[in-house]
Amino acid sequence: MVIVIQCKDQVGLVASITTVLMRKGINIISMREFVNTEDARFFVRIETTESNDAALIEAALQAVLPEDTAIKVNPLPDKKIVVLVTKEYHCLSDILIRNHFNTLGAKVQCVIGNHTTLQELCNKFNVPFHYISHEGISKTIFEEKLIHTIQQYQPDYIILAKFMRILSPQFVALFAGHIINIHHSFLPAFIGAHPYRQAYERGVKMIGATAHFVTNDLDEGPIIVQQIIPVNHAFTAADMIKAGREIETAVLAKALQVVLDDRVFVYKNKTVVFE
Amino acid sequence: MVIVIQCKDQVGLVASITTVLMRKGINIISMREFVNTEDARFFVRIETTESNDAALIEAALQAVLPEDTAIKVNPLPDKKIVVLVTKEYHCLSDILIRNHFNTLGAKVQCVIGNHTTLQELCNKFNVPFHYISHEGISKTIFEEKLIHTIQQYQPDYIILAKFMRILSPQFVALFAGHIINIHHSFLPAFIGAHPYRQAYERGVKMIGATAHFVTNDLDEGPIIVQQIIPVNHAFTAADMIKAGREIETAVLAKALQVVLDDRVFVYKNKTVVFE
Amino acid sequence: MVIVIQCKDQVGLVASITTVLMRKGINIISMREFVNTEDARFFVRIETTESNDAALIEAALQAVLPEDTAIKVNPLPDKKIVVLVTKEYHCLSDILIRNHFNTLGAKVQCVIGNHTTLQELCNKFNVPFHYISHEGISKTIFEEKLIHTIQQYQPDYIILAKFMRILSPQFVALFAGHIINIHHSFLPAFIGAHPYRQAYERGVKMIGATAHFVTNDLDEGPIIVQQIIPVNHAFTAADMIKAGREIETAVLAKALQVVLDDRVFVYKNKTVVFE
Amino acid sequence: MVIVIQCKDQVGLVASITTVLMRKGINIISMREFVNTEDARFFVRIETTESNDAALIEAALQAVLPEDTAIKVNPLPDKKIVVLVTKEYHCLSDILIRNHFNTLGAKVQCVIGNHTTLQELCNKFNVPFHYISHEGISKTIFEEKLIHTIQQYQPDYIILAKFMRILSPQFVALFAGHIINIHHSFLPAFIGAHPYRQAYERGVKMIGATAHFVTNDLDEGPIIVQQIIPVNHAFTAADMIKAGREIETAVLAKALQVVLDDRVFVYKNKTVVFE
Repeated sequence: MVIVIQCKDQVGLVASITTVLMRKGINIISMREFVNTEDARFFVRIETTESNDAALIEAALQAVLPEDTAIKVNPLPDKKIVVLVTKEYHCLSDILIRNHFNTLGAKVQCVIGNHTTLQELCNKFNVPFHYISHEGISKTIFEEKLIHTIQQYQPDYIILAKFMRILSPQFVALFAGHIINIHHSFLPAFIGAHPYRQAYERGVKMIGATAHFVTNDLDEGPIIVQQIIPVNHAFTAADMIKAGREIETAVLAKALQVVLDDRVFVYKNKTVVFE
Repeated sequence: MVIVIQCKDQVGLVASITTVLMRKGINIISMREFVNTEDARFFVRIETTESNDAALIEAALQAVLPEDTAIKVNPLPDKKIVVLVTKEYHCLSDILIRNHFNTLGAKVQCVIGNHTTLQELCNKFNVPFHYISHEGISKTIFEEKLIHTIQQYQPDYIILAKFMRILSPQFVALFAGHIINIHHSFLPAFIGAHPYRQAYERGVKMIGATAHFVTNDLDEGPIIVQQIIPVNHAFTAADMIKAGREIETAVLAKALQVVLDDRVFVYKNKTVVFE
Repeated sequence: MVIVIQCKDQVGLVASITTVLMRKGINIISMREFVNTEDARFFVRIETTESNDAALIEAALQAVLPEDTAIKVNPLPDKKIVVLVTKEYHCLSDILIRNHFNTLGAKVQCVIGNHTTLQELCNKFNVPFHYISHEGISKTIFEEKLIHTIQQYQPDYIILAKFMRILSPQFVALFAGHIINIHHSFLPAFIGAHPYRQAYERGVKMIGATAHFVTNDLDEGPIIVQQIIPVNHAFTAADMIKAGREIETAVLAKALQVVLDDRVFVYKNKTVVFE
Repeated sequence: MVIVIQCKDQVGLVASITTVLMRKGINIISMREFVNTEDARFFVRIETTESNDAALIEAALQAVLPEDTAIKVNPLPDKKIVVLVTKEYHCLSDILIRNHFNTLGAKVQCVIGNHTTLQELCNKFNVPFHYISHEGISKTIFEEKLIHTIQQYQPDYIILAKFMRILSPQFVALFAGHIINIHHSFLPAFIGAHPYRQAYERGVKMIGATAHFVTNDLDEGPIIVQQIIPVNHAFTAADMIKAGREIETAVLAKALQVVLDDRVFVYKNKTVVFE
C-alpha cells in the first residue's frame, strides 16, 4: 500500500500519521518525508505492508491532520493514460512496448494524433487511435474535439509524447496537474521552437530533455525529470535531433515511472520527487 | 540536530520516535527511513530544528526503543580524522584544501605517511605529518607504531587516501567500522594489484573508483560510493591511471561528505546511504 | 562513402591513402586515425564525399598498402542482422522498433527464439520468427538447427539480445567476429550467472551492462560499449533486474549503432571505436 | 610532437600534410581530422614521434598549404598562465595543486585578485599574488592595472577562476582567444547573475557549469566543456552553490587539460575539441 500526504507543516505530523498506522497494525516498509522550510510545506510518501481498508485509513489519517491536507491511500492501482502525438515515433513506441508487456505502471487507453503517421503502430498493439486534425478548424474547435475524446476515457494523466501543438490555457486548466510533456531541451535553455538548431548554433557540448507538468506558461511548468547526453563539434543539427530522440525517450520513461508510482508531489511551480 | 537510529524492525518504531520528538516540541525538517525487509532491519535519519538537550533526547528515545538500538543524537559535530598516505598527492590534496577552508565536515588531526613524499604539502597547511616507514621492520611493529600515533588523536575516522600497505585483521578490528579506503577500481572488478593495467588489458570502456569501509577481507568491505568515467581505446595504462586520479579524488570526497554528515549506516556487509 | 582500413603500422600510411583519394578527386569529410603503439597497429576510418567506384578505390588503396591490410570501402550499405532471443522483450523490442522505422542501420532478417514468448511481438512487425527449442536435443543438434536457419539469411551480424544459451566454440568460430552479445553486468565484474543477485549481495552502488563481441571464452570477448546506472540500498535484487533492463537496452542500441556505422575495429581482444 | 592546423577545406589537404611528414621520416601516432562542411573549414591535430626541427616542419607544411593556414608545430611545451580570482577558493585551489605537482600542463605565473582573500593560499605555494582592487577607481583604470600586471608575465592564457568582475570589450580584445572563464551554469540557461538562485526558483533537476573562451558578449563565447550534476527538491539555493563548486572545479580542470594539450580549435563562435 502507498500513502502520500501533502499539507502545511507543523510539529508532530509524522507522529500523528505513524501512530494511526501503528494502531491499525500496519508496518512501514519505506518512508520518505520532506519539509520545504521556505514554504513550511510537508510531504510524505509511505509504503506499508498490505491492508484492505484504504478508505478507513484515509479517514483515520484525515481525522488527525490539518483540514487542507491532501491524502491519497493506495492511489489508483490501475492508472489510465491517454497519449497525444504528432508524427515522431520514439516516445510513443517506448510507451506502447511497456504498455504491451505490462511494465508501464498504467494502461494506455488510447492515442490521439493530429496526423495519421502513428496510427499503424497503434493498430499493431491494438490500442485505439483517434485522428483529430488541427487543420482547417479553429484552435477552440480542435481542442473541443480533443477534450471530447479524452473525457470518454477518464484518464489519470494525459501524456504529450512529442505532440507539436501548443495547448490553450483553457485546455490546460481543465486537466490541471494531469498533463505531462516531454520538452526537447534542458529547460530553461532553448525555450521555444527549434531547440536543436539553437543548440547547434550555440555550440553546446551537451543536449538535454525535460519532462514537466504543463501549465499555462509554455515550457514553464514544474519539472519532473531532466537528463543530458554529451555531444561534440562533429554533431550536425540533424545528429543532435537524432541523439535527442534517445534522451527524450529515456526522460519521458523515467518521468512516467516516478509519476505513476506516486513518487511525485507538485507544490507551486516545483516538484518533490521521492526517487 | 541530526538523529540517526538503527535497530531491529517492528511495528510502530517511527510513531514512537516521532512522538518523543513531538512531546519535546522538536520539529522534523527532514526524515529518511528505510527498512531492509530481508533482514528486518530499521534505519532512520532525522534532521530537526535545534535543541539543547541531546543526552535527554537520546535517553527518551532509548526508553521507547528496543534494547539493541544504536542511537546517535547530534553526533559529533566536530569530527576528527587521521589520514594515511603513501606517495600519491591527489586525494590528500583535496582533503587538505577542504580542511583548510572548513568545508570538509571534520578536522584533519594529522597525516601519517610511510614515505616522506607528502610531508611538505602537509607543512604548507600546518597539518602534523608523521613519517612511519614500513621498511626494515615487521608488519606488527609497523602497525603498532601506526596505532600508537593514531590513538593520540582519538579520530572518529581513519582515511586511507591511497595508502598502499595492506592492514592486518588485528589493525582493522581495532578500528572496526572507522576505516575508509579509496579503491582504484569499480569493485568487484579488478580486485587486487594493478587494476588500471588489468583494465587496460581487458579493453574496458569505463574505469571506476570505490570508497568503502575496510574489513578483514581485502577490497570486500561495505561500499559507500562508486562512480565511473568513460575511457576509450586511445587510453594507455598510464592515461587510465591519470584519469583514475580524478575519479578517485571525487569518489573519496563524496564518501567523506556523506559519512561525516551522518548519512551512512552499516549493516552486515552493506551500507544504507541517505543522500 | 565510408572507408575503413586496418593494418600493421608504418611511416607514410596516411599519406599513401589520402594521396590515392586526392588523385580520384575525393574529398575527406571526416577522418579518425589511431595507432596502437604497443602493437604497432594502424586503424583509420574515413568519410568522404560520394563516389561510384568503390571497387576501383579499394584496388587503388590495396596497391599502395601492405599485403595483409584489411580494407572495406563503402561497406555493406544494407547490412543484415539476425537476432537470437529467449524470453526477455526489452532489447528485442527496441531493435524491432528501430527496424520498423528504418533507424537501425540494418534490416532484421529474422528472429530466432528458443522459446515462443516473443513470437507474437515479431508477428506484429512482420519479422519472421523461428522457434528452435533446445529441449530434448543435444547442444550439437540445437546449434546445427540454429546454423541452418541463420545461414539462410546470410547476416552480417548475429545479435544475442538476451539469448540465454551458451554457444559452443564451434558455433562461435563459424561466425567469428560477427556475433554481438549484451551482457548484464559491468564486465569483468559479476561474470557468470545471476549477476544482479551478485550485485545485490555485494551492495554495489552502480549496475552496468556490456555489449561485446562473442569469443570462445564466455564473457571475455572484445568490449564495444559499457554504461552504468546508479543504484542504492533501497534496490532489491528484483529492482536491479528492472533497472538493468533499461541499461541493457541502451547499451545494446549504442553498440549496434557504432558497429553498423562501421565505427568499430577489432584487434586481439580489444576494440577501437571511433565514436 | 603535436601539430595543429586550421584552414579552409580543399581536396588533398591530408595527403599534402602527411606527405610532408612522411618525407621527413616522421611517424604519425594519432591523428584527428574534422571538416565543418557548413563552413568548409578544415581542422587537424597530429601527434607524431619526436623530431628536432619544428621550424623546418612548419615551413615545409606552410609551403604546401593555403596561405591563410594557421599552423602550430610542437606548440608551446611550457605554457604560461595567469589566474584571476575574487574570493572563492575552489577553482584556484585545484589549479595550484596541479601546478605544484606539475600535472597542470602549464605553469602558473601569478594570481591576481581583486580581494586579498586568496593571497595566503598563493603564498603557501610560492605563487606570486597581486592584489588589484576595483574599488574607488574607474573600470578603465582597474583594467589598465590588470593589463600592466598580466603583460609582465606574457601568459599564453588568462584563466578567470571565479573572477567576479565583467571585463570590457577593450580588455577582451587585447587578449582575444586567450581568456578562459568558468561560468556557473549550463549555458545558455541562467545567463547573468545569481544562476543558482535562478536554478533553485525554477526547480531544475540538474545544475551545470560551462568553461568557455571569453568574447565581448557576456557568457556568449565559444564553449569548451560543459558538465552537469543531478540535484533534487531537497537542495536549497545554498546547497546548489555548494554542489556547483564541485562541478565548476571539475569543468575548469577539464577545459584547461584540453586547451593546454592543444586539443581545442576555435572558429567563429564554436570550438572543435579533439578529446
